Amino acid sequence: MGGSGDVRGRVLRGTFFHAPSPDGFECCADAMLVIDAAGAIADVLRAGSGEHAALAADESGQVMRLPEGSVMLPGFVDCHVHAPQFPQLGLALDVPLETWLMRYTFPLEARYADLDFAARAYGQLVDDLLAGGTTTALYFATVHVPATRLLADLCIKKGQRALIGKVAMDLDTCPDFYRDADADEAVAGTRAIIDHIRAHAGNSEGRVLPVVTPRFIPACTDEALEGLGQLAAETGAHVQTHCSESDWAHGYVRERHGMSDAESLDRFGLVGRRSIVAHANFLSGSDMDLLVQRGAGVAHCAHSNAYFANAVFPLRRALEKGLHVGLGTDISGGPSASMLDAQRMTVAASRMLEDGVDAGLPAGERGCRDSRVDMVTAFHLATAGGAEALDLPVGSFEIGRKFDAIAIDTEAAEGTIRLFDGSAPSDVLAGVLYQASRANIAHVWVDGRLVRSHRDAAPRSKPGLRAGAFAAI
Amino acid sequence: MGGSGDVRGRVLRGTFFHAPSPDGFECCADAMLVIDAAGAIADVLRAGSGEHAALAADESGQVMRLPEGSVMLPGFVDCHVHAPQFPQLGLALDVPLETWLMRYTFPLEARYADLDFAARAYGQLVDDLLAGGTTTALYFATVHVPATRLLADLCIKKGQRALIGKVAMDLDTCPDFYRDADADEAVAGTRAIIDHIRAHAGNSEGRVLPVVTPRFIPACTDEALEGLGQLAAETGAHVQTHCSESDWAHGYVRERHGMSDAESLDRFGLVGRRSIVAHANFLSGSDMDLLVQRGAGVAHCAHSNAYFANAVFPLRRALEKGLHVGLGTDISGGPSASMLDAQRMTVAASRMLEDGVDAGLPAGERGCRDSRVDMVTAFHLATAGGAEALDLPVGSFEIGRKFDAIAIDTEAAEGTIRLFDGSAPSDVLAGVLYQASRANIAHVWVDGRLVRSHRDAAPRSKPGLRAGAFAAI
Ligand SMILES: [Zn+2]
Ligand SMILES: [Zn+2]
Repeated sequence: MGGSGDVRGRVLRGTFFHAPSPDGFECCADAMLVIDAAGAIADVLRAGSGEHAALAADESGQVMRLPEGSVMLPGFVDCHVHAPQFPQLGLALDVPLETWLMRYTFPLEARYADLDFAARAYGQLVDDLLAGGTTTALYFATVHVPATRLLADLCIKKGQRALIGKVAMDLDTCPDFYRDADADEAVAGTRAIIDHIRAHAGNSEGRVLPVVTPRFIPACTDEALEGLGQLAAETGAHVQTHCSESDWAHGYVRERHGMSDAESLDRFGLVGRRSIVAHANFLSGSDMDLLVQRGAGVAHCAHSNAYFANAVFPLRRALEKGLHVGLGTDISGGPSASMLDAQRMTVAASRMLEDGVDAGLPAGERGCRDSRVDMVTAFHLATAGGAEALDLPVGSFEIGRKFDAIAIDTEAAEGTIRLFDGSAPSDVLAGVLYQASRANIAHVWVDGRLVRSHRDAAPRSKPGLRAGAFAAI
Repeated sequence: MGGSGDVRGRVLRGTFFHAPSPDGFECCADAMLVIDAAGAIADVLRAGSGEHAALAADESGQVMRLPEGSVMLPGFVDCHVHAPQFPQLGLALDVPLETWLMRYTFPLEARYADLDFAARAYGQLVDDLLAGGTTTALYFATVHVPATRLLADLCIKKGQRALIGKVAMDLDTCPDFYRDADADEAVAGTRAIIDHIRAHAGNSEGRVLPVVTPRFIPACTDEALEGLGQLAAETGAHVQTHCSESDWAHGYVRERHGMSDAESLDRFGLVGRRSIVAHANFLSGSDMDLLVQRGAGVAHCAHSNAYFANAVFPLRRALEKGLHVGLGTDISGGPSASMLDAQRMTVAASRMLEDGVDAGLPAGERGCRDSRVDMVTAFHLATAGGAEALDLPVGSFEIGRKFDAIAIDTEAAEGTIRLFDGSAPSDVLAGVLYQASRANIAHVWVDGRLVRSHRDAAPRSKPGLRAGAFAAI
């Protein structure tokens, strides 16, 4: 970092795609972005403008140019990641939710009492998410304060923008080997993480933020929920939890509290401008109105929902109501860590919601009309939409936003983008978003700092087939 | 080819995963596969057997060993590819089907009258599919005989196992700029391709096969369908077409022929042991019975179906009836050329069919019970299942099968597989199938010949960011 790829105080010239609104994208071909010393976008100079021409003639070296075949996108904002579940990505997806939690997920999360294990798993996760273009992540950690501190330290060190919460879960239905002893411990641990992150010497710019994180109502006592709501009000910290994910979760809260999940979270003070609820598939219309009124957001996790949510989140209806929505991979309820996959699944799931799934029903009774979104909307949600939900000044190439961005090399030999004659900007963007894989993600910046380049990929530690062909015994 | 990676006449030692049946997989750790001179598997020696020990002591160099961290899978069998549509992968998916066909797809396919364009696009396609692990592809080409010959020549040259059909479409509802002039031309062109492929000097092993390919009933006259059915009977060639893909296509055939799509295809002699129909989402139970009786197969294209099919193919019901099913990417109705993506989407779509999509309905009315399949079943379908549907001796590591295989490097630095402590074979397989990307596909063999290695990726033709960092103007 701070090396040749640092763009703070410099000008970056290239082709930029972004989608500040869900309804369209903008392509700024051969534009120049002026980045200030703090990594924010100070100016955007379009090709053809006088200032652009003047800077184009500049020979001081402050203008850096992307090579032909590269396009810039805003970095992806992943609004729902269970950091400790990364080691089981793609595993155990065929068991029922309760088995998944009790036999796989909670035992795995419990292992983060071991800080060596935590360092290894969290380090790999942050590296991989950055390599995948995720410049901002909203993380659930575990119940453990030390491992959650470690995750924050790693994000600060590696330069990822991150929002991190110690998971609060004190209800005695959670297993003895993995829960907070009581509400006090849940709240005190959360406070300790808020203090640690805010006071961190390496975090003076506030790139890493603390999050009040009740796992979900079915894992918390009312006392803990109340204490966490008060802590959020007192500290102004973000809040994250799960809400109305599945038939079971939705019904559980109604049974226990006599109201909807969203209403119950709200009365505990957990629904505000900086609150994000994951999934929310079963929100009623009035639940949505409540979230809109509070300025809260939803993390839509289309891939995970196919496995665990029993329905598709009515995304388009939510957007029409003005609800803030970002996308989440939901590692590891979702089997992919890639925000490109999240965008693709968002579009596919919306089509399946619109048309329905059961060929045995008449077409008119099969789905929910007017539910589809297109890839441009998914791209918006993965960038500017997620940023809006998190109340962060990132996600687009507008003046004043922080420069969190990825350079896509459309011609990377090991990549998977093939743009034939499609030179229309809409074709380039669709080609990139549908076809790109990690090898196409050449560079990743957060706050104008280069945090990842493709060349960073660690060299192989042992000779592979490619090096020595086959080792004859 | 024929170089150090050729395993014909040699023994390959490593860890092999395959799924000969939909119900389970088998992991042969540290096994030895004896490959004969023609590229078929002559013997499988398990670790611990006497023959294994004897060969392990062999120092002649005939035993080649995969490096640690590699696992072998059968090559993927893609049962539905529109080869000419590769240049529009991921494009124009948001328009209605008719617009998609008339404004994008048919004009693109018409360009294959230009053999230079065809050579460029088809060459890239075959390279990319091999790089993605697709060792067998069932291709729709275009109406053009010369370009279809070219595709066959390219597959023969590049070593891909391929089944290729000139598309027959002579109904005058097809655009004037892109159709067969009449039924005679449709049948004669098909015959010309059958003759070309069967007589090809480079194809003495029959690795490339011809396919009788009426596009679908809505694009063909009854005369053409009848002529093509007779041609299939006469030549014994494979047959492929589309069947009951969408509400519209399903209804069209009933309207025109007064029977179901499957029944109508059958009376033209187009449903036999070597027939594959794509999609088939709206097959009735008796349609399925008919296909089972004929030994015909279905190419299930879960990703494409989300865009164009109005429902999810009832895969599990089909499997329970004993229907042969393979998976297809449906380039470019589906936005991904990857058979790994096809497997992932197969599982996700089956879950969405089971649980339903509309949160506004009661759980009991939302989906179709008992519809889910797991990743092992998807893996089976992508390998042995597709091979069975195509009546080809590939898709598993059983004695007598041709050695079509891929080596997955689970530790490839630019890859995306992260196996933490999960050393149980089921975890390794799930991790590979859910997480792998192209950079993990280290080697690809067809008939024992190495047809692709990761190192084949063309070097960049110009300096990129990674080489010279940023070019200051
Ligand atoms: Zn979650
Ligand atoms: Zn098709």
